[in-house]
Amino acid sequence: MLVIMETGVPPVQVQAVLDRLKEANLEGHLSAGAERIVIGAVGRVVDPEIRTAIGTMTGVESVIPISRPYKLAGREFKPRDTIIEVGGVRIGDGSFVVMAGPCSIESEEHMVTTARAVAAAGGHVLRGGAFKPRSSPYAFRGLGEEGLKHLAAARAESGLPVITEVMAVEDVELVARYADILQIGARNMQNFNLLDEVGCVPKPVMLKRALSGTIEEWLLAAEYIMARGNHEVILCERGIRTFETATRNTLDLAAIALVKDLSHLPIICDPSHGTGRWKLVQPMARAAVAVGADGLMVEVHPRPDHALSDGAQSLTFENFAAMVRSLSPVSEALNRRLAPQPPASRRDPSVV
Amino acid sequence: MLVIMETGVPPVQVQAVLDRLKEANLEGHLSAGAERIVIGAVGRVVDPEIRTAIGTMTGVESVIPISRPYKLAGREFKPRDTIIEVGGVRIGDGSFVVMAGPCSIESEEHMVTTARAVAAAGGHVLRGGAFKPRSSPYAFRGLGEEGLKHLAAARAESGLPVITEVMAVEDVELVARYADILQIGARNMQNFNLLDEVGCVPKPVMLKRALSGTIEEWLLAAEYIMARGNHEVILCERGIRTFETATRNTLDLAAIALVKDLSHLPIICDPSHGTGRWKLVQPMARAAVAVGADGLMVEVHPRPDHALSDGAQSLTFENFAAMVRSLSPVSEALNRRLAPQPPASRRDPSVV
Amino acid sequence: MLVIMETGVPPVQVQAVLDRLKEANLEGHLSAGAERIVIGAVGRVVDPEIRTAIGTMTGVESVIPISRPYKLAGREFKPRDTIIEVGGVRIGDGSFVVMAGPCSIESEEHMVTTARAVAAAGGHVLRGGAFKPRSSPYAFRGLGEEGLKHLAAARAESGLPVITEVMAVEDVELVARYADILQIGARNMQNFNLLDEVGCVPKPVMLKRALSGTIEEWLLAAEYIMARGNHEVILCERGIRTFETATRNTLDLAAIALVKDLSHLPIICDPSHGTGRWKLVQPMARAAVAVGADGLMVEVHPRPDHALSDGAQSLTFENFAAMVRSLSPVSEALNRRLAPQPPASRRDPSVV
Amino acid sequence: MLVIMETGVPPVQVQAVLDRLKEANLEGHLSAGAERIVIGAVGRVVDPEIRTAIGTMTGVESVIPISRPYKLAGREFKPRDTIIEVGGVRIGDGSFVVMAGPCSIESEEHMVTTARAVAAAGGHVLRGGAFKPRSSPYAFRGLGEEGLKHLAAARAESGLPVITEVMAVEDVELVARYADILQIGARNMQNFNLLDEVGCVPKPVMLKRALSGTIEEWLLAAEYIMARGNHEVILCERGIRTFETATRNTLDLAAIALVKDLSHLPIICDPSHGTGRWKLVQPMARAAVAVGADGLMVEVHPRPDHALSDGAQSLTFENFAAMVRSLSPVSEALNRRLAPQPPASRRDPSVV
Repeated sequence: MLVIMETGVPPVQVQAVLDRLKEANLEGHLSAGAERIVIGAVGRVVDPEIRTAIGTMTGVESVIPISRPYKLAGREFKPRDTIIEVGGVRIGDGSFVVMAGPCSIESEEHMVTTARAVAAAGGHVLRGGAFKPRSSPYAFRGLGEEGLKHLAAARAESGLPVITEVMAVEDVELVARYADILQIGARNMQNFNLLDEVGCVPKPVMLKRALSGTIEEWLLAAEYIMARGNHEVILCERGIRTFETATRNTLDLAAIALVKDLSHLPIICDPSHGTGRWKLVQPMARAAVAVGADGLMVEVHPRPDHALSDGAQSLTFENFAAMVRSLSPVSEALNRRLAPQPPASRRDPSVV
Repeated sequence: MLVIMETGVPPVQVQAVLDRLKEANLEGHLSAGAERIVIGAVGRVVDPEIRTAIGTMTGVESVIPISRPYKLAGREFKPRDTIIEVGGVRIGDGSFVVMAGPCSIESEEHMVTTARAVAAAGGHVLRGGAFKPRSSPYAFRGLGEEGLKHLAAARAESGLPVITEVMAVEDVELVARYADILQIGARNMQNFNLLDEVGCVPKPVMLKRALSGTIEEWLLAAEYIMARGNHEVILCERGIRTFETATRNTLDLAAIALVKDLSHLPIICDPSHGTGRWKLVQPMARAAVAVGADGLMVEVHPRPDHALSDGAQSLTFENFAAMVRSLSPVSEALNRRLAPQPPASRRDPSVV
Repeated sequence: MLVIMETGVPPVQVQAVLDRLKEANLEGHLSAGAERIVIGAVGRVVDPEIRTAIGTMTGVESVIPISRPYKLAGREFKPRDTIIEVGGVRIGDGSFVVMAGPCSIESEEHMVTTARAVAAAGGHVLRGGAFKPRSSPYAFRGLGEEGLKHLAAARAESGLPVITEVMAVEDVELVARYADILQIGARNMQNFNLLDEVGCVPKPVMLKRALSGTIEEWLLAAEYIMARGNHEVILCERGIRTFETATRNTLDLAAIALVKDLSHLPIICDPSHGTGRWKLVQPMARAAVAVGADGLMVEVHPRPDHALSDGAQSLTFENFAAMVRSLSPVSEALNRRLAPQPPASRRDPSVV
Repeated sequence: MLVIMETGVPPVQVQAVLDRLKEANLEGHLSAGAERIVIGAVGRVVDPEIRTAIGTMTGVESVIPISRPYKLAGREFKPRDTIIEVGGVRIGDGSFVVMAGPCSIESEEHMVTTARAVAAAGGHVLRGGAFKPRSSPYAFRGLGEEGLKHLAAARAESGLPVITEVMAVEDVELVARYADILQIGARNMQNFNLLDEVGCVPKPVMLKRALSGTIEEWLLAAEYIMARGNHEVILCERGIRTFETATRNTLDLAAIALVKDLSHLPIICDPSHGTGRWKLVQPMARAAVAVGADGLMVEVHPRPDHALSDGAQSLTFENFAAMVRSLSPVSEALNRRLAPQPPASRRDPSVV
């Protein structure tokens, strides 16, 4: 931590900062520049608020942190990539994984049909929402546990592991019973109680970036989950909110490349929410491969013009199959490949 | 809802839209402009997804909503201002209310001392956080129920009603037992389960705007609470996230004036979080009065350089008292006044 | 300048940074923290690119500037407020100045009529655009010199000094012949050639903040003008571009309070462009007084529904007069007052 | 244009709108919905301000434009892709073009050395700035005409056509004498006089997107150039300004895919400014190919730690060559290829 003093401060104010640092068990090193005095604070920070506290003192212009605030999520803590295995699929091992399915689960038939189409086109993980965050209280908010059952049926039929969103602490146990991967949505990236809770569940968690979440806040949110013991966190870039309204969000692909550098966690890309327009999903999916993402999450629906949510950004089965086909050559051009699909033995049609 | 078709679409695509509208029990009115066909959809919308669904159809350029998506929160539904009475204080009746206290509750003595200072300076409501949302899992996250007890002690001592944040569905009952007003923080503005839950509690709720929340989304979040039966919602503008980093957030005072026009709900301003710098709190507090806010929420701490959170934006008791004094003449210049403080009879020193 | 090294860098990389600093005539002071080495660079920076250069070196994590990049515009350089006198009006002396007029000059009659109304209502400076920046090449772009003549006629009639925008280096001489204050529009805040040029003109310059201009960039733009010798710069906050679309821009009033702290230059507020809605102009104008602005710039039009530009944010004469009346009590509540209007002797009706 | 009336407006206000439309030679078609009256305006818009004018009228809630505001730049006007030929290189024909060079031209040797390296690595167009927009007046602002001469020498030596920025109307003639492509920088995207001027020059223009420029404003800026007769416009996405500070800007790759749909103009990507970090340039360059960009502009410098500007985002020669090599397989995977380099006959070493 560096403390920058205002120009021309009297010695008494400098001393006060040195005293306050000492009170917090930190050693202050004075360094007088041409215009300003800078105090470097050395020692193990026990009180995480000391930075703000110093910042309020008379004569202090600013306080600059030196260390990164996350530990477990950072490459400094763990240099090698984290690989997560789920239902026969490996995420983060260099191969490219495709997660797909409808925004909302609408019925068993709807889910099973979609699962077959996703599997047939080469997808690896099936998505589908049973609990839906909706801006309006009057919109369709999902089928709840009934939806989870349809999801399980679709898994049995297709052999694909399933991912679904959990929105509330009180639903974590229920959702974890059905899901292979728990999804934390963008609006809940800083729902800290929920992060604590999924940190105690023995299942991988996919953590979406918040609409206005900085990369640092996002990695700190992952840190919440990891600090509770669950180190299987998959990050998902899904677009940030900016002034541009021609797309639903601004998909920040550079964040993917940067996160690969800062963190060992796998990171995937959601071009459906990231753009809000199905026509842009395929080009952005290819770009996600090219930038180094570990995978993709896209919305697929048998009839987007009848979807109960997010139809505008959903691919038809045909468009989804075409998109997956277009990813293979790009992957290979970068010495990568699409991940192998889960083994056929995982399918259990008897369950349906 | 208006459906704008692309230029030069064949009649069959127009017909498909008309058919889809009919399926949703809406009547389509065709209107051919110089370049484009526009279809007006008339009828009571039962399916809230119909707009998105139409948007995905071939030949459709865009779909434009006409009605506002919120009802109960809007002035069209209730033209007269909502006035909320809590602990002898009236919020939204034209007078100006000051809520103040520390970011985090640190001890009973800390809370009681602050309460006395807030009351003495002319404040109306006491704030203090027992459950704290923190970006880092390693930061101080509040004292929990112990903190709530200190808050209750401070209320008994000062006679001021208290407001405190609730972050999780499972804590609502506990917090509601101690608090006079429940606060929903910015990060939880779209925690829909939590909104549902506080919508069932017979206590006023203060709903902060999210860092990237549009005014429409904010009013829809209020609608969530109101739709469950709790119509006592106070809005709180606390700054939005923009590209500017010289202040912690960008306090959007125009939003206050606009919300007063769109909604009947009271709205207050939080210049502490809105700016992140205590020196800016007083000028922005005065501006909040001038723009028509119903009140203020500010952070006050006996020793900001020892605060367990948000010290940089906290006022000392002296600065707080000076700020409150500066608000009276501005209020009077606008034919308003500071609200009367709660009656002395509310104080119950015996409890402490 | 502080150079933060990555964790665990070898000594050779630290030495390379010290050598590179020496090459730039700076002395490097090493300070080893618990996790990272920090190098403080001391000396007079001659090469402004040295910071970026160091930032590219192997082992360097980041480089943090300590000094503010602007000099002439800062309070450290000149602690006392700059006061600008123009046409009998003093700007920045603690009183509040109102600049008003139409967005575009449409005709002599239009301009003279508006000038009379502005003067009668208590305004101090007349605005009107002869050169208009417009997003579309097909929109009305102003009357050019003819418009400037109408502006001069309106000045003669009303006695009010006039302000008008200059958009191009080649127009500076022409515009300076007619205008009392030159306006640099938001889109030209970083048109550096234009800043250089108005820096050589012996007339005050009003510099609007860019749509995405940080406060630091804005003060650096002022520095461009001042570095050429023209120290009479008035800053104007006119709203920044954010994700919120309910208002045209987000008016950043905290920036006004902060700039008063960082700089000695006068700063005024433009709530017309800042909100884009005439109904919000009056409340935000009052807030501008309350936050400490030195004045206001607003759009006024005899018939906003027939304006050639920006009608939606223009006040009628009646609304303008009501707004000015509402500012007096707020000013007085803060021990300020509206500035005296320019003396009647400045009027020269014979010219018209 | 659609005019949405407020709920419950009296007939006289509706009539006033119809009258105002008639005055502007537009026909108003009334359509009464369940809650609101909507008026569709049909006819050729002569007065581009009519939309704003109507928006100010009593009882009008909002006015919604139907037609796109740009014409010449849109696909509706010209469905087939525009292909621009310059110095033996074709831009926009489906192949991928690489423009590279230093941010600032520093000396003839510096420029010629870089040109050789760019050509040897497979680059197509040489960039280099002689006039530099800099936030601070104290930073290096370029060599001016001397720099242009070095650029010409580098062209003669390498055979590569050259692109360089022009910042002011008064420099257009000079710059056009040396450059093969004129660059309009991000800060000048809405410098309308400059757009007018380059619209009259018989050379291609590369138009960068502004830091806060919407896609619509960007295409309107292209329209300015085209409306003057110059239809050879190349768009360049270089990142927008958002709340995220971990990268210099947020590179909006989805904008590239969307612009390919809206416009026939070629569009390239600048990952150097888009990210501000040289490590992110290669992954984002590959992503630009994948998303369908027509080319790339990147910064290359022999010694980035000694660059006079933008060293942090510049590639060394080795990194540049590695990047170009990585683009070929990605292009081929998408049935594209890197464009052929200009013919050797264009080299004229005698000039140097």
